[in-house]
Amino acid sequence: MKKLLIIIFLAQSTTIFPQQALWGREEITSPEVHDDNTVTFRLNAPKAKEVKIMGDWMPVKEWTPVPEKMSKNENGIWTYTTDNLPSDLYSYSFIVDSLTVKDPNNVYLIRDVSSVSNVFIIGNGKGDNYKVNDVPHGTVTRRWYESPGNEKHRRLTVYTPPGYESNNQEYPVLYLLHGMGGDEEAWIALGRTAQIMDNLIAQGKAEPMIVVMPNGNIAQEAAPGESSKGFYKPTMQLPNTMDGQMEKTFPEIIDFVEKNYRVQENKDGRAIAGLSMGGFHSLHISRYYPNTFDYVGLFSAAIMPPKEQESSDVYQYLNESLVTQKNNNPKLYWIGIGKTDFLYENVQDYKDRLDKIEMPYEYVETEGGHTWTNWRDYLVAFAPKLFK
Amino acid sequence: MKKLLIIIFLAQSTTIFPQQALWGREEITSPEVHDDNTVTFRLNAPKAKEVKIMGDWMPVKEWTPVPEKMSKNENGIWTYTTDNLPSDLYSYSFIVDSLTVKDPNNVYLIRDVSSVSNVFIIGNGKGDNYKVNDVPHGTVTRRWYESPGNEKHRRLTVYTPPGYESNNQEYPVLYLLHGMGGDEEAWIALGRTAQIMDNLIAQGKAEPMIVVMPNGNIAQEAAPGESSKGFYKPTMQLPNTMDGQMEKTFPEIIDFVEKNYRVQENKDGRAIAGLSMGGFHSLHISRYYPNTFDYVGLFSAAIMPPKEQESSDVYQYLNESLVTQKNNNPKLYWIGIGKTDFLYENVQDYKDRLDKIEMPYEYVETEGGHTWTNWRDYLVAFAPKLFK
Repeated sequence: MKKLLIIIFLAQSTTIFPQQALWGREEITSPEVHDDNTVTFRLNAPKAKEVKIMGDWMPVKEWTPVPEKMSKNENGIWTYTTDNLPSDLYSYSFIVDSLTVKDPNNVYLIRDVSSVSNVFIIGNGKGDNYKVNDVPHGTVTRRWYESPGNEKHRRLTVYTPPGYESNNQEYPVLYLLHGMGGDEEAWIALGRTAQIMDNLIAQGKAEPMIVVMPNGNIAQEAAPGESSKGFYKPTMQLPNTMDGQMEKTFPEIIDFVEKNYRVQENKDGRAIAGLSMGGFHSLHISRYYPNTFDYVGLFSAAIMPPKEQESSDVYQYLNESLVTQKNNNPKLYWIGIGKTDFLYENVQDYKDRLDKIEMPYEYVETEGGHTWTNWRDYLVAFAPKLFK
Repeated sequence: MKKLLIIIFLAQSTTIFPQQALWGREEITSPEVHDDNTVTFRLNAPKAKEVKIMGDWMPVKEWTPVPEKMSKNENGIWTYTTDNLPSDLYSYSFIVDSLTVKDPNNVYLIRDVSSVSNVFIIGNGKGDNYKVNDVPHGTVTRRWYESPGNEKHRRLTVYTPPGYESNNQEYPVLYLLHGMGGDEEAWIALGRTAQIMDNLIAQGKAEPMIVVMPNGNIAQEAAPGESSKGFYKPTMQLPNTMDGQMEKTFPEIIDFVEKNYRVQENKDGRAIAGLSMGGFHSLHISRYYPNTFDYVGLFSAAIMPPKEQESSDVYQYLNESLVTQKNNNPKLYWIGIGKTDFLYENVQDYKDRLDKIEMPYEYVETEGGHTWTNWRDYLVAFAPKLFK
């Protein structure tokens, strides 16, 4: 009787649909990452006519990975095994008779703006930096700050390095900005910032630093679902993304951080970097406040604002302010872009502009395009160059 | 051209499969919560033969909600509208030709042990406490602490109330424990602890307090996916859940909190509560350290350990230690249980035991069973009684 009670207890204790977890028809594992970096996916769908898989390691056609067919066995389980994959973090979905579905056997999901995908990590290479390894771990905090300039309470994510709570050191700060449609969850979730920083610091490659991940969409209080707007359908088409308002109110974020954390309150202890729109924000914030950051990182950066927003005074005097920034001798101005990125030409034009004013910069050109795999790479390349 | 570039930019900037987000065949909304608390669900699945919906507001048979059929329109969109629902947080899944799938139009998902479900909130009642409202927000932190007693680094979640960072007050602490299969994400995600506390504090109903949500499975470093075990398939069948080890090493958690937060370091400033296995832990921790907590909450609590684990010295001298605890005059010993909970009889037996030793307690009996809807209710009832 007690045994039975324990079984019932196990079955009922916390799941909503407990029998799914315990008494599913098949105990299948998906994805299964093999030692040779191949991966097997499985889906129990006996009634399906056709099941495909679409993952971001597959060849892309018109910005979409071309799905591949899975094979059905006699028990109605569909399987697919990849070739051996380069080490990375990957996303995928199944397509069951034209319906895109998540893998019911994989609880690891990350939202990217308005879509949610299953994820997995291939180690034995750069993907090891995205794993939680047995190293000292930093602290991840979601906090709210006052933004009178935007008439809002706003939310941000802060990574403090291992040891922050147990000593009295002042730490340098990297402000790390997301792209269009993203929010204060983007870098910590898709970017694996906490894992990357834990690992780089443990390996002695990066200095211990605080990483502040604000929300760069000043129309938002917070990420979708985390604000008083409730659970709504996220969109990329937000207002006020590149109209100067993020740049103008950025000092509120620096003030908040410097009042609330033990940080180095000087140019030498401040870095700013971002991807895509966040690279745009980093470019303009760092030259609009030209003596504030000693380290600037532009990851697949947009360069100029869209025509209808370029009248903001923030975007005037571009060359003049870049010259001022240059004359203040920042220690690192770092630019990374993928060869097939749709912003590639814009970045080349921007390099020409920097060359004309003889502003020094480091330039890294990688394979691939406008992807998180590149942005994680850029963070891994950029962070070790800071605060040394 | 610039317009086109912006469109491309919007399309590519941060999504992995961007065209899904922007150029889906239909812009449908699901779920759509109407003003009268009915909800419409929609799924675009023209090739499906039968689509059902299963949600935790539906009548339950053998612990599973009985799914209901959705109807297909001429565009291949399946829809279903509920009756008006009582205010609460709900979970649901679709069943497409026998395959259980998530709603592709709802990015709000919560993992419960090994299953992931879409969620939505019905307001105009108790569900308003689960929403992010326009009130001051506390801070949510994921931190790691040393657990020499378990030979691990371990992770916990901490809620600090609004104002914690900007004054010098010492705060009381509620230790809030999860059930079997759960982890340090359970209360913050399914339990909506941060939203409940923000709202109760803003309404003047609860005192500002710190809420510490540890991981009660001492076999784990951290929640699935958050430890060096990597992305594995979660299970409820963990070792060492109720063998005395959680109770024995609990002082490590209190020590960590009292060394790292501005807290009241006395019985008067400590509460402990938990659901199911966490209620069991709260019961045994609070009497094993009988002068440590002035407030104890047992939510749908398991009472006694399974037979093979009851030999631990933690579980001996139950009556004697309860008498000692009683003689130390705790301010509140609160018991909540649902009428159809499978642990109902065990809780009645435990009440008899408390009656025999004349230990005072508050007893609340509710409708329903062993569910998160009850546990959120119990937190909303319990928190306002603390630290007054």
